[in-house]
Amino acid sequence: MSLVYVLNGPNLNLLGKRQPEIYGSETLDDVEADCRKVAAEHGISIRFHQSNREYEIIDWIHEARESAAGIVINPAAFTHTSVAILDALNTFDAPIIEVHISNIHKREAFRHHSYVSGVASGVIAGFGTQGYQLAIQRLAFLIKKAAA
Amino acid sequence: MSLVYVLNGPNLNLLGKRQPEIYGSETLDDVEADCRKVAAEHGISIRFHQSNREYEIIDWIHEARESAAGIVINPAAFTHTSVAILDALNTFDAPIIEVHISNIHKREAFRHHSYVSGVASGVIAGFGTQGYQLAIQRLAFLIKKAAA
Amino acid sequence: MSLVYVLNGPNLNLLGKRQPEIYGSETLDDVEADCRKVAAEHGISIRFHQSNREYEIIDWIHEARESAAGIVINPAAFTHTSVAILDALNTFDAPIIEVHISNIHKREAFRHHSYVSGVASGVIAGFGTQGYQLAIQRLAFLIKKAAA
Amino acid sequence: MSLVYVLNGPNLNLLGKRQPEIYGSETLDDVEADCRKVAAEHGISIRFHQSNREYEIIDWIHEARESAAGIVINPAAFTHTSVAILDALNTFDAPIIEVHISNIHKREAFRHHSYVSGVASGVIAGFGTQGYQLAIQRLAFLIKKAAA
Amino acid sequence: MSLVYVLNGPNLNLLGKRQPEIYGSETLDDVEADCRKVAAEHGISIRFHQSNREYEIIDWIHEARESAAGIVINPAAFTHTSVAILDALNTFDAPIIEVHISNIHKREAFRHHSYVSGVASGVIAGFGTQGYQLAIQRLAFLIKKAAA
Amino acid sequence: MSLVYVLNGPNLNLLGKRQPEIYGSETLDDVEADCRKVAAEHGISIRFHQSNREYEIIDWIHEARESAAGIVINPAAFTHTSVAILDALNTFDAPIIEVHISNIHKREAFRHHSYVSGVASGVIAGFGTQGYQLAIQRLAFLIKKAAA
Amino acid sequence: MSLVYVLNGPNLNLLGKRQPEIYGSETLDDVEADCRKVAAEHGISIRFHQSNREYEIIDWIHEARESAAGIVINPAAFTHTSVAILDALNTFDAPIIEVHISNIHKREAFRHHSYVSGVASGVIAGFGTQGYQLAIQRLAFLIKKAAA
Amino acid sequence: MSLVYVLNGPNLNLLGKRQPEIYGSETLDDVEADCRKVAAEHGISIRFHQSNREYEIIDWIHEARESAAGIVINPAAFTHTSVAILDALNTFDAPIIEVHISNIHKREAFRHHSYVSGVASGVIAGFGTQGYQLAIQRLAFLIKKAAA
Amino acid sequence: MSLVYVLNGPNLNLLGKRQPEIYGSETLDDVEADCRKVAAEHGISIRFHQSNREYEIIDWIHEARESAAGIVINPAAFTHTSVAILDALNTFDAPIIEVHISNIHKREAFRHHSYVSGVASGVIAGFGTQGYQLAIQRLAFLIKKAAA
Amino acid sequence: MSLVYVLNGPNLNLLGKRQPEIYGSETLDDVEADCRKVAAEHGISIRFHQSNREYEIIDWIHEARESAAGIVINPAAFTHTSVAILDALNTFDAPIIEVHISNIHKREAFRHHSYVSGVASGVIAGFGTQGYQLAIQRLAFLIKKAAA
Amino acid sequence: MSLVYVLNGPNLNLLGKRQPEIYGSETLDDVEADCRKVAAEHGISIRFHQSNREYEIIDWIHEARESAAGIVINPAAFTHTSVAILDALNTFDAPIIEVHISNIHKREAFRHHSYVSGVASGVIAGFGTQGYQLAIQRLAFLIKKAAA
Amino acid sequence: MSLVYVLNGPNLNLLGKRQPEIYGSETLDDVEADCRKVAAEHGISIRFHQSNREYEIIDWIHEARESAAGIVINPAAFTHTSVAILDALNTFDAPIIEVHISNIHKREAFRHHSYVSGVASGVIAGFGTQGYQLAIQRLAFLIKKAAA
Repeated sequence: MSLVYVLNGPNLNLLGKRQPEIYGSETLDDVEADCRKVAAEHGISIRFHQSNREYEIIDWIHEARESAAGIVINPAAFTHTSVAILDALNTFDAPIIEVHISNIHKREAFRHHSYVSGVASGVIAGFGTQGYQLAIQRLAFLIKKAAA
Repeated sequence: MSLVYVLNGPNLNLLGKRQPEIYGSETLDDVEADCRKVAAEHGISIRFHQSNREYEIIDWIHEARESAAGIVINPAAFTHTSVAILDALNTFDAPIIEVHISNIHKREAFRHHSYVSGVASGVIAGFGTQGYQLAIQRLAFLIKKAAA
Repeated sequence: MSLVYVLNGPNLNLLGKRQPEIYGSETLDDVEADCRKVAAEHGISIRFHQSNREYEIIDWIHEARESAAGIVINPAAFTHTSVAILDALNTFDAPIIEVHISNIHKREAFRHHSYVSGVASGVIAGFGTQGYQLAIQRLAFLIKKAAA
Repeated sequence: MSLVYVLNGPNLNLLGKRQPEIYGSETLDDVEADCRKVAAEHGISIRFHQSNREYEIIDWIHEARESAAGIVINPAAFTHTSVAILDALNTFDAPIIEVHISNIHKREAFRHHSYVSGVASGVIAGFGTQGYQLAIQRLAFLIKKAAA
Repeated sequence: MSLVYVLNGPNLNLLGKRQPEIYGSETLDDVEADCRKVAAEHGISIRFHQSNREYEIIDWIHEARESAAGIVINPAAFTHTSVAILDALNTFDAPIIEVHISNIHKREAFRHHSYVSGVASGVIAGFGTQGYQLAIQRLAFLIKKAAA
Repeated sequence: MSLVYVLNGPNLNLLGKRQPEIYGSETLDDVEADCRKVAAEHGISIRFHQSNREYEIIDWIHEARESAAGIVINPAAFTHTSVAILDALNTFDAPIIEVHISNIHKREAFRHHSYVSGVASGVIAGFGTQGYQLAIQRLAFLIKKAAA
Repeated sequence: MSLVYVLNGPNLNLLGKRQPEIYGSETLDDVEADCRKVAAEHGISIRFHQSNREYEIIDWIHEARESAAGIVINPAAFTHTSVAILDALNTFDAPIIEVHISNIHKREAFRHHSYVSGVASGVIAGFGTQGYQLAIQRLAFLIKKAAA
Repeated sequence: MSLVYVLNGPNLNLLGKRQPEIYGSETLDDVEADCRKVAAEHGISIRFHQSNREYEIIDWIHEARESAAGIVINPAAFTHTSVAILDALNTFDAPIIEVHISNIHKREAFRHHSYVSGVASGVIAGFGTQGYQLAIQRLAFLIKKAAA
Repeated sequence: MSLVYVLNGPNLNLLGKRQPEIYGSETLDDVEADCRKVAAEHGISIRFHQSNREYEIIDWIHEARESAAGIVINPAAFTHTSVAILDALNTFDAPIIEVHISNIHKREAFRHHSYVSGVASGVIAGFGTQGYQLAIQRLAFLIKKAAA
Repeated sequence: MSLVYVLNGPNLNLLGKRQPEIYGSETLDDVEADCRKVAAEHGISIRFHQSNREYEIIDWIHEARESAAGIVINPAAFTHTSVAILDALNTFDAPIIEVHISNIHKREAFRHHSYVSGVASGVIAGFGTQGYQLAIQRLAFLIKKAAA
Repeated sequence: MSLVYVLNGPNLNLLGKRQPEIYGSETLDDVEADCRKVAAEHGISIRFHQSNREYEIIDWIHEARESAAGIVINPAAFTHTSVAILDALNTFDAPIIEVHISNIHKREAFRHHSYVSGVASGVIAGFGTQGYQLAIQRLAFLIKKAAA
Repeated sequence: MSLVYVLNGPNLNLLGKRQPEIYGSETLDDVEADCRKVAAEHGISIRFHQSNREYEIIDWIHEARESAAGIVINPAAFTHTSVAILDALNTFDAPIIEVHISNIHKREAFRHHSYVSGVASGVIAGFGTQGYQLAIQRLAFLIKKAAA
């Protein structure tokens, strides 16, 4: 059974509790449940994490190097500022999907640049929390294809 | 039954026949078939078009204003240059999903900016031709939600 | 009797039917009628066109080279992107007036630059559809002056 | 009877006496006479001022707040440098029309940006001194419409 | 008894009468009264001025060179455009506090740069008219410290 | 009794021990004591924290969402680099005051931009450690006003 | 016998009839005749086209993919704006020569950048209409060399 | 006898009384005396003015149009900000020499650009107050040459 | 015996295990051993640390203030993003050497700027892991010289 | 018999001996021979030079002023850095053709700007060493035309 | 007797023989004679040189370090490109005057920046060849003052 | 015995005689002696050169192509301006080490960019003259490794 990491950046612990006009009303627990459901349908197991700590996200990426067939990452604010996460992802050989709940291209200019996009195979933004599920569908597809 | 337009910009008629390392080996007919299949699963009907002509895309968007519940658009090269398509999409009230087969953020700098992103509700890039199917899934979700 | 071309760019066929908070509620037919009325008062005849096709606008400018004493042009989205229209206008020797219904200087930054302004003798923006009438008044004045 | 202020910035006292290839040969007195004539035709009275002093222009705008139904302003050089005039205009609730005798978009790059455009409802440039008359026509139209 | 100049730039004569959502409802007379009260508590006397004229502000700064122990200045629009006021302040040896009623960093980009900040010892923005009082408190502290 | 968080970013634990020509000789304990004194005078209680860890500052802001009537924040180096702190502050509904001990506008260019200013109601810089006390005075004023 | 496409962009139908100080007095028919003569000398046949329509140029490039050993293209105004033509040329495997009649580097700044140069093997500018003939000479050389 | 205007911008009334490390210890009266002496040697009479008021400088330039054979101008801070003075100078047909006491190219970046340089025939900077005398020598030379 | 801190930033724990074409095949343990050997030759003792946590690096720098005669730092990704580390290093009085294993000037543009370089006495890049040894040689030289 | 100078900039002495994937395998002697052959066919004599010394190139241009009917110049690296060569060419009245062996528009960004292009009548890049021959053909054409 | 070097950059050997509308009709020999005359009047001796070779100018500056009381330099094209000359001048302790015959601020944008201005005590531009004489007058003044 | 070129750019002949606060007090002869000593310890012979002439440095690099196993280069001012030296180094296949005596990243902005870094395998700056010795150590290591 393939393993996928789903990593969430800072402030996403407040999902569903803040700025619902931007981020919707689902909580991160809801997202995790949705992810597990879609993953299960594709025979994939999930490690789902959130942290406000850049180093924890780096450590999880390092951990994923040992065992994971893919990473779904919503780096949140770190998207725009963390070269360290980019460098960690650069050490990861399997596919990476970058997710943003809101359409970052419609927000402040500094949110238009993502360090992570340079290393992600795909990027999905503005699909709300459904973006996670589609990202997992994509990884499932890529994992099956790589196995073929 | 809801209607969705799937619009494709210039050179996409060559899909599967050129630069497979960037765009893969599926043809646009394959994409259309995949779209129709996914759409049917969600009770959605599809108008699927491709053109190298900016004005045809504008005309289809105008047409969609009358009848469609959503637009999936891969503007291809027009992504980066067409204010006219942006203005046409600005007259369309239902949701718009922007699709790019390749991850445009990994390519030349001039491909990092999209006029269309400013009006799309969601953007998906680098998911290969699967991106179309996920875009339709998203529209299905939004149409159902709007109807609720 | 002098002839003036009034040329309208993409999406203006929807005038009065979309975004009335920006463009007002008059249709392009109304604009044409107003133009004909003002023109008649000044002994000017009008060729009035709209197209979503850049090449048609270019072709009309080429046509105007043969017969027209002036051009009123609202290039709409092509204002900001079309060097081809600029080059066509560069071949036209009589005066050109550039019209924008909205005040483009209050909108997105990319709407602040006009390729056409570099070749227009005058520019009028934010006067609503009345801008067309004032543009024709101006051409009437310039045509009379040139004839003097 | 509605009152409109017509305000003119620095060096316009020399109009008709300097650089006729740019500004034409009409003097500011001619412009005032033309304005009064057009205004009278629309039942509008005029306060017509020119100053090389930024503060006088600010003071006249403050004065206009009390009594005027519109402002026509040719800020001349202050167009490009005066945030103070912009701020004064920001306190004025009725419509503002910005006039430039020459087409500033064809001149030095620093003349392409106008602080005033951000607060004007309309901008007219390159119509020579006729621009003032058309600006008054526009205000007459807007005043009548607001009164309707 | 120490003397402090409180200088106010263009359009501040309208304070409390315009754009209350930005500037609040206190008038400049209220501000002056508040300033005098706080100053008196700290044994400081006040010269309080406002002008729409850049040169008056320059002249007051020159005057302050002779007699003042500090300057509180709200340069308003001149903040962003006046090198002449900067140069005048450069000739003043005692501390200068820059005050902005609104938080200029949340407004248009051209309001983010202040020529005056380069010579002010402190800057306070977005504290409403209370900013003046805190600025005087600060000067009182610095004057006492310098005297120690 | 209202509660206010006073949050301090990296390296401020060395306050009074390093670069006194920039930051003065008061320690952070002195600052805390001063804050508590001013707060007490206004009937406000204080939670005072410092951390070199971005995530702790984020966590304290999240904590403040539950209980605080305002935040005073000196983000120090994070001012210029942390979108994550900006996003955390964006979830906080009561007023935020940004404090910088030195006048950051007189230092290196990269210190002139603050992510936090975009969400702060007020900013105070270059008032030395007194800035904290004035910030608390400001919050006291705003809390009283909101309660009125 | 090798086939070469010679493609001409917008407004070149007016060649010899407009701005002779920039473009000379030869017409496009003259250019075609010259090209055919040079081509014949090298055993090459020519398809010679001009269009004001971007899509026709794209379609001809697609057509050339089937049969041509090289493309000579003078994209005229599209040089600076058309990513769609660049993308079409990217699908063409044989050599491409970019021709400009005038020296675009001596004209307006926006004419200094060419999307096409990034995919052309050679660029020739400012050689007047002779540039076409030299471009064909070059293709003849490359075709012979590739055949060797 | 030829007449030359020597015009001085804001804060130069403090010359010799402020920042001697930048501007030296001569006062403006000294400069005037030196100018008169050099002018007399060349048979030139002088009108010597200083003002902190931009409009006075504009008015003097307008006055000079009637009677002067040249202008020496040290616009001080207005060098970098006044398009109005540039426009006034644009109306003056005889030669203009721009003087800066300090070498503005060694100071802050915003002092490196001069609006006036675009219209001056010569610029002299960093020659201290001697620059005025050399500027008058230059005008004397040009006046004699023009008379020849 | 002098003490030197050798500090390593994020992802360097993977040294020798990832991207050997950029970073070589030595592990961080190898680097530490090499450093200890060279240090011993110069009578220097070493504290050698690595962390993915920015705050740990800050804390070690604070610790070094008490006891160390120099710092060797390879900030890795933090080089380009951490003002907080720069501020910590600004509090350190003895020499700092910045090391990069790869030549960062040959990589992505965002890697060309280093916050740390502004405070380092020396920078060494592209010397592979040997850079650490040469950095220690340099510190040994500077320590001996300072002691002389 | 007309004389043409063919001037070659730095490192071109190594032509054919270095980076054949960029510059091909012909040596500069081959190029000279080819040039002489083409020139002879057009009744032109050639002075062919190469230097790594900027001043020699300047001196040859000065020399050419006396005797030459045209210059072919491949300034190599000096293309992008030498204002001195531009100034020398500015003193030369007959036509100048700029040649680059490789297509500089496909290489590093700093190679996209040429000081020489501003003064050349034509530019040819990416035609390999054949570019020299076509440049001479062009000069032959221009010389014949000028003589007509 | 004080010694002054007068150094002239590339292409100035053609002075009076090229572009008289920019540089006038005096030759460099005339300039030298004028310089010697003015210098003699002030008891100064002159070494006057011109070179198209950057290294000769550097060598003369090094030579001047041994013996000269000042340098007058017209670096011509090297003004805008030579850091090496700047570095040489940085080693020279006596005053340096930078001369440009034309007003470089009215010419191409790349001529507006001078590396030399950052180290010159004074800059004079647009005074024609008279600029040299005034520069020597200035050095005479400074030498006398330094001797006082 | 391997041969290494040590090349020094303009003004380095003055090393130890100028600006000791930047460059130290060692002369270039001292540097050469130090280099020879270190080289000898590693069985390497040295060709040590300095020139103010760009072409000599180019010629030495061409010479090195025939015989050298590495180059140490301190291009001094040419670092920032010489594409010609970059191109010469591009023809050299063995390793290149770039040395700067001072830390160029702490000096003027134009010294932060190096053309040479793009082709050097390693860069060392701010190590004083010791940088040369460490560069030779590095080359010795690389030569030994390449030979292994």
